[in-house]
Amino acid sequence: MTAPNRVAIVGLGLIGASLARALRVAPAAPRVLGWDADAASLRTAVERGYIDTAVDSVEAAAREADLLIVATPVRSIAGIAARALAADSKVIVSDTGSVKQAVLSGLEGEGGDLRRFVAGHPVAGSERFGVDAADDTLFAGRRVVLTPTETTTETALAVVRATWEAAGARVECMSPDHHDEVLAATSHLPHVLAYALVDCLAGMEGNRELFAYAAGGFRDFTRIASSSPEMWRDILMENRAALEPTLEAFETTLSAMRVALRSGDEASVLATLQRARTARERFLNLMDAPDAR
Amino acid sequence: MTAPNRVAIVGLGLIGASLARALRVAPAAPRVLGWDADAASLRTAVERGYIDTAVDSVEAAAREADLLIVATPVRSIAGIAARALAADSKVIVSDTGSVKQAVLSGLEGEGGDLRRFVAGHPVAGSERFGVDAADDTLFAGRRVVLTPTETTTETALAVVRATWEAAGARVECMSPDHHDEVLAATSHLPHVLAYALVDCLAGMEGNRELFAYAAGGFRDFTRIASSSPEMWRDILMENRAALEPTLEAFETTLSAMRVALRSGDEASVLATLQRARTARERFLNLMDAPDAR
Repeated sequence: MTAPNRVAIVGLGLIGASLARALRVAPAAPRVLGWDADAASLRTAVERGYIDTAVDSVEAAAREADLLIVATPVRSIAGIAARALAADSKVIVSDTGSVKQAVLSGLEGEGGDLRRFVAGHPVAGSERFGVDAADDTLFAGRRVVLTPTETTTETALAVVRATWEAAGARVECMSPDHHDEVLAATSHLPHVLAYALVDCLAGMEGNRELFAYAAGGFRDFTRIASSSPEMWRDILMENRAALEPTLEAFETTLSAMRVALRSGDEASVLATLQRARTARERFLNLMDAPDAR
Repeated sequence: MTAPNRVAIVGLGLIGASLARALRVAPAAPRVLGWDADAASLRTAVERGYIDTAVDSVEAAAREADLLIVATPVRSIAGIAARALAADSKVIVSDTGSVKQAVLSGLEGEGGDLRRFVAGHPVAGSERFGVDAADDTLFAGRRVVLTPTETTTETALAVVRATWEAAGARVECMSPDHHDEVLAATSHLPHVLAYALVDCLAGMEGNRELFAYAAGGFRDFTRIASSSPEMWRDILMENRAALEPTLEAFETTLSAMRVALRSGDEASVLATLQRARTARERFLNLMDAPDAR
């Protein structure tokens, strides 16, 4: 077996329900089981045909599936994964959390069988969330990072890889700590900046007028600040070990720009802007397509 | 006369050429004259019919037009406006610069006739630039801020207002210093953050990989860092008096978030994210449409 016959998805939010939908329309579609702590989300997923069958617990999902994917908020992943691994001695378990070290150490703390666990993260998302935002093309052509450890079996890795490939994603592997550093820089830091910018403006006098004069660039720039606050609190807290040095590096860059502006050091200001523009243009082709979000 | 019969546009970049095009297709289209220091841009504007006639100097443009709009880089505006005002005793002069205090004090220093000068700023733009980016709908429904002073005549203000309204814009007035504060917060600060973020990542080890894992949110977030570095050096330098306190306020917000993360103050992290999301959602309807940029 490489591609699993029965995939259970625990947590039917944007990521979980989108994966369910993508697998259901894949060429060799597995049977998709689903569970969510929120009964309304689970009912919606069944009614709309996003999943084949609703199961009534994490344990039931583990016993009935070859592969169980935990797509719940990052702080709940380790506990759910441990329950799933304990409920069935053969099921392979994976997850979709935006932070990998915290999930792995949490699962180790729970005594989960790490041989059958493959930590994963689809680098895709949206400021939208919940089952209503599910999109069967969310992962098409997008990168999914898997962070197997020395303990992970080759079979487990192959099953999880095949599943994401069936959903249209490009699978790549890296170490958990490297994943967390990369995501701190490319996703968690930008979210912090967008939230901080909007909060900073919202706290200024005449804030209503400020937003009225915010042009299209501002809307784009702050779109990610419409993401779920609870979800992002968890991600930022769980990845703060990697995020903190990244934030400090950014603060150093920013205060250097402010000092250059204050002291009238035009050459330094221009050099920063030019380096940034050149880097963005150079790497633009590596980033996702503009319409993909 | 309210709407002018002959409008000269000096500087046929994104803003100037877009205004020319918008006026040419307006119901009671004025005759549009154009000049640009770059001969190729001027030729392109003529060949594509963006302007009716090319003139061969700022002075000629001033003598032949009722209204002359300076749409050149912000640091050159005061000098060009002064030349235009000196060349003809009746022409009304306006501009499109992103900073208003610096333009007005520069023009005062040049001894320009401030009665016939109306400082203006269309709050529209794009990371694209140059005559090739000209778009006759760029100002449709967008805000144009005029910052008349006590010296500005009512006639001059009415002529400039009517011209922007003909181009489809919504005209609003505020004081020059207030304009500069509002734009520092809503436009100049986000540009600094986007440039600083890309520069910060570009300076990190493994930067190529970082950009490869940057998802759609990052692309949106950094789009404004593809704007012209020279143009933005000038804007940031010219508005640094208003920008510096705004940057400091942002740095305070950001470092408070970092401290809250480090100290595990989850309630404070969540409160910031919630305030930001709520503010963005509340003010979303005030911002420009998502497709307008």
